[in-house]
Amino acid sequence: MKQAKFPMETAGKVITCRAAIAWTINAPLCIEEVEVDPPKAGEVRIKIISSGICGSDNHILEGKTKTPLPAILGHEGAGVVESIGEGVSSVKPGDKVLTITVPQCRKCDSCLHAKGNCCLKADVIYPVGLMLDGTTRFTCRGMKVHNLFGTSTFTEYTVMHEISVAKIDDAAPLEKVCILACGVPTGYGAAVNTAQVTPGSTCVVFGLGGVGSAVVLGCRAAGAARIIGIDINERKFARAKALGVTDCLNPRNFKKPIQQVVVEMTGVGADFTFEAIGTIETMVAALESCNLSYGVCVIIGVSPTGSQLSVDPMKLVSGRTLKGCLLGEYKTRDHIPLLVEDYMKKKIDVNSLITHSLPFVKINEGFELLRSGQCIRCVLIF
Amino acid sequence: MKQAKFPMETAGKVITCRAAIAWTINAPLCIEEVEVDPPKAGEVRIKIISSGICGSDNHILEGKTKTPLPAILGHEGAGVVESIGEGVSSVKPGDKVLTITVPQCRKCDSCLHAKGNCCLKADVIYPVGLMLDGTTRFTCRGMKVHNLFGTSTFTEYTVMHEISVAKIDDAAPLEKVCILACGVPTGYGAAVNTAQVTPGSTCVVFGLGGVGSAVVLGCRAAGAARIIGIDINERKFARAKALGVTDCLNPRNFKKPIQQVVVEMTGVGADFTFEAIGTIETMVAALESCNLSYGVCVIIGVSPTGSQLSVDPMKLVSGRTLKGCLLGEYKTRDHIPLLVEDYMKKKIDVNSLITHSLPFVKINEGFELLRSGQCIRCVLIF
Repeated sequence: MKQAKFPMETAGKVITCRAAIAWTINAPLCIEEVEVDPPKAGEVRIKIISSGICGSDNHILEGKTKTPLPAILGHEGAGVVESIGEGVSSVKPGDKVLTITVPQCRKCDSCLHAKGNCCLKADVIYPVGLMLDGTTRFTCRGMKVHNLFGTSTFTEYTVMHEISVAKIDDAAPLEKVCILACGVPTGYGAAVNTAQVTPGSTCVVFGLGGVGSAVVLGCRAAGAARIIGIDINERKFARAKALGVTDCLNPRNFKKPIQQVVVEMTGVGADFTFEAIGTIETMVAALESCNLSYGVCVIIGVSPTGSQLSVDPMKLVSGRTLKGCLLGEYKTRDHIPLLVEDYMKKKIDVNSLITHSLPFVKINEGFELLRSGQCIRCVLIF
Repeated sequence: MKQAKFPMETAGKVITCRAAIAWTINAPLCIEEVEVDPPKAGEVRIKIISSGICGSDNHILEGKTKTPLPAILGHEGAGVVESIGEGVSSVKPGDKVLTITVPQCRKCDSCLHAKGNCCLKADVIYPVGLMLDGTTRFTCRGMKVHNLFGTSTFTEYTVMHEISVAKIDDAAPLEKVCILACGVPTGYGAAVNTAQVTPGSTCVVFGLGGVGSAVVLGCRAAGAARIIGIDINERKFARAKALGVTDCLNPRNFKKPIQQVVVEMTGVGADFTFEAIGTIETMVAALESCNLSYGVCVIIGVSPTGSQLSVDPMKLVSGRTLKGCLLGEYKTRDHIPLLVEDYMKKKIDVNSLITHSLPFVKINEGFELLRSGQCIRCVLIF
């Protein structure tokens, strides 16, 4: 991008730009002209430079996760601050930032607690698609348009709360680090923070997309001896093995349930299992794939709205642990900038996860790459 | 008891003695004459001196937990070794022992692992009521009678696998320490080992019977600042407060769900919650009572056979941990004798949990005390 002068001429004004609107489920996104309001107090307007396409965006388009439409989806973004609202102090125009679905307000009980990261200001568990004041900054064809998880990155400009904006290193390559806003920490942190994978352990990863691949990186970094990757799309297997998966399994190649296959392969069940898909069936399989006495199962995938995970409690009483996590349990504004630094020091191999880049206007092609399993992560460039 | 000479005259012979037989569910136990076979290789015959009556025994009699009948129930026993089978080396006739439902074979994957204690030789998760060779050592009126969890303590003599027998201090008072065979470690360990309750934390205990009361002792020992006890039987509240419960709640006194009451009382939900009853309803309430971001919910109660715990996975994805444990996650033969020592050093207040003692023949009265909530623990003396 060209170096812009700050303050931008646009500061304080409505910006008219392009955005991909999700008008309804089960339909392509429409590139439309939208008006983006200036940021209010505590808010930040960001020029988006890149955005990953995440499975959660697709869950919404396929109607599995309910969030109000019309909306501007996308949440895994990198950009540059265009302008700031009153009282904003942690970023200034020109700063490079990531857009984070889980804010860190640093004031609520969750932010102040040593563990956990589900900031009480988050709009991610049961999303309403609005800013904290109950309004939206997006208008299209005269209609108000919802945001997504307080982010919305499938747009040339977005407005977010300061508490959801992570300032990152000025030297970070924005066309790459966007996936450090969601997919990478979500998977990597699930392994190193939530499960606390131990050296020499056996891990199982259900789903070898962007998040699952990041789980693999985390398991490998933690010293796992065996990483079993499970996916119904065998196209993903070669890349998964390159990342560190030792055994790839396609459940459709077995007559018995995949959890039984895993228990037989390992003799005793896995030490750690990860669900990075978001279906009840794979959650049950992940739980039953881990050792009955000391196994830990981490749920990462977002399940269909209203769905219920049904578990025989005796499968827990024997000793299993079932946990979930958001964004890898990182305190987001504190820790995600550190992951960007780790990437720049080549400690985390983000580049291998970005298998495709497309111009923003080809966003529907990007979703097709995701659905067909051809990509690990497709990044849109604005 | 009188000091007996060893080897006993009975060694190697069938012993005829009294036992309480559960012929069928929903009926009183019958005191009957039974024949108890001598121990086979790797087995130990034990003269039972005392036995607690545990909620799990009652779950079976009420038909909630399925285990084959007729059977000799009871599993929370203390006694003296009468004779040993071939190859038994960890105990000898005359040794004081506790009868443990979760063996420690010291050879299986679970026993060799640093965490977890669900020995693969256990018959406790989906019990079959037989010794490992598929037979039973009990006969009554010419019929073979099942055991329970490899223990069976509602009998003057029982036969167990050596791997389920914990040798304890010769000076231990057997009429008291029986409850260290199950109820005390199950609750206490759930707090200190499984949840790892932290100083200053808020804990919630669902069920203020024997196990729940032991949870309270564990929470207090770990330094919890607030312990909320929940039970529908207010008779238990005075004793619970004496043990360390700071707030007692009866869910029937509220129009809203008890989890909502707890979240409102605490502002944010509890740090740690414990389910020590064994119903699906209280398991859901326990999970939802703990903090969405960092709360830990431990399932201790044995749920009705075939029942399913149904959970919105998003309640986990926000950061909650749901775990279960057996016998407080202790490696049983290694650690339970140490708890007996702690009791003898007055570090664990077992005596306060034993509110009633009855002669063995009054066992049905003991079950009535349990069902009516009049006792914390009733101990049968043989």
